[in-house]
Amino acid sequence: MNKIITIGREFGSGGRELGKELAELLGFAYYDKEIVQEIAKRTQLAEEYLHAIVENHTGIPFPITVGRTLYHHNHGGEYLLHHYAHVYSEQANVLREMAERSDCVIVGSCSDYILKDYHPVRLFVYAEEEAKVARCRANADEHEQLSDKQLRRMIKKVDKNRARHYHYHTGQIWGNRTNYDFCINTSAAPLKEIAEALAPLLKNIKAER
Amino acid sequence: MNKIITIGREFGSGGRELGKELAELLGFAYYDKEIVQEIAKRTQLAEEYLHAIVENHTGIPFPITVGRTLYHHNHGGEYLLHHYAHVYSEQANVLREMAERSDCVIVGSCSDYILKDYHPVRLFVYAEEEAKVARCRANADEHEQLSDKQLRRMIKKVDKNRARHYHYHTGQIWGNRTNYDFCINTSAAPLKEIAEALAPLLKNIKAER
Repeated sequence: MNKIITIGREFGSGGRELGKELAELLGFAYYDKEIVQEIAKRTQLAEEYLHAIVENHTGIPFPITVGRTLYHHNHGGEYLLHHYAHVYSEQANVLREMAERSDCVIVGSCSDYILKDYHPVRLFVYAEEEAKVARCRANADEHEQLSDKQLRRMIKKVDKNRARHYHYHTGQIWGNRTNYDFCINTSAAPLKEIAEALAPLLKNIKAER
Repeated sequence: MNKIITIGREFGSGGRELGKELAELLGFAYYDKEIVQEIAKRTQLAEEYLHAIVENHTGIPFPITVGRTLYHHNHGGEYLLHHYAHVYSEQANVLREMAERSDCVIVGSCSDYILKDYHPVRLFVYAEEEAKVARCRANADEHEQLSDKQLRRMIKKVDKNRARHYHYHTGQIWGNRTNYDFCINTSAAPLKEIAEALAPLLKNIKAER
């Protein structure tokens, strides 16, 4: 069985960077945006729309482009629920194929829950609010510059949506320690040092536990 | 400023063993039972009684020996509240003196909260239920052998009391990631390997953060 490391993360906490660093140190494949890209290919749905469903579960109270068609939210809740279920099922297929292919690090997408039969090592990455604001600012494009207050509001909203999405599909509480093996506050130490400490530990954990 | 590592832990999770291992690897002092012993010296209260207050906050609905005197719970709630406050204040003094003395690892006793001005690295240690039952069984004296069901009930009760005690004094939720820097599920890997991974990382974290 391959070794799978899943990463849940607060927005702006550096979870993706930590995942990339770990994948590099361990020589593992790394999947993040690739998940949505793969679902998009299979379902012919737009990536932006999929991203909203797979990660944020926003309820999408605005006109959306699905494939080449413009849908309005007044198509009703039933239509959307059908869509969620369809996308989640495809998401599960994509994640399982990735897990079968090789050792890998997978970010987000309820991967800790969907892949539980593969006994992944489940990380959850979080940070102090000020550190998340600073990271979001550093990663933003020039034209995306928001005030600290706006960034704080955005971080809160994205995380709230992630928690709702996670709970919707897993019945579990997002970020609750009982769903993870290691919860890491990236405000405590540089990402590189955290990755270097974790890599040998994760390497030693057997896939068949 | 000295480097302080605090450890909150679920009963049976191996938090004390991990703390001891870390203290040894880092060459730090290690405080656990010493805290209650020191409070006992200063307050002339019995260790057993102090342990119930400092760690478990059980409400103590039975006759207790305080120093040399037998008190009954019908002395009333006010008396007990006064006692809690007195002991907590002495506990804070003891912890601060330990923190001033040298680099150290401190287990339990709301140390992460009481010593927050020392910017401790705050660990929380937990484990899967089966692993906790097995550890409790392995650590128990022969005459203390309980059934798995009894052990499960005891683990739940001790942790419930710890959570209540922590919340009473800190207003925070015990074991909630936001109060900690690293939350560690000891079911994921051997304690020794976890300690060896963490030690260099913790060593690098500056005390003045």
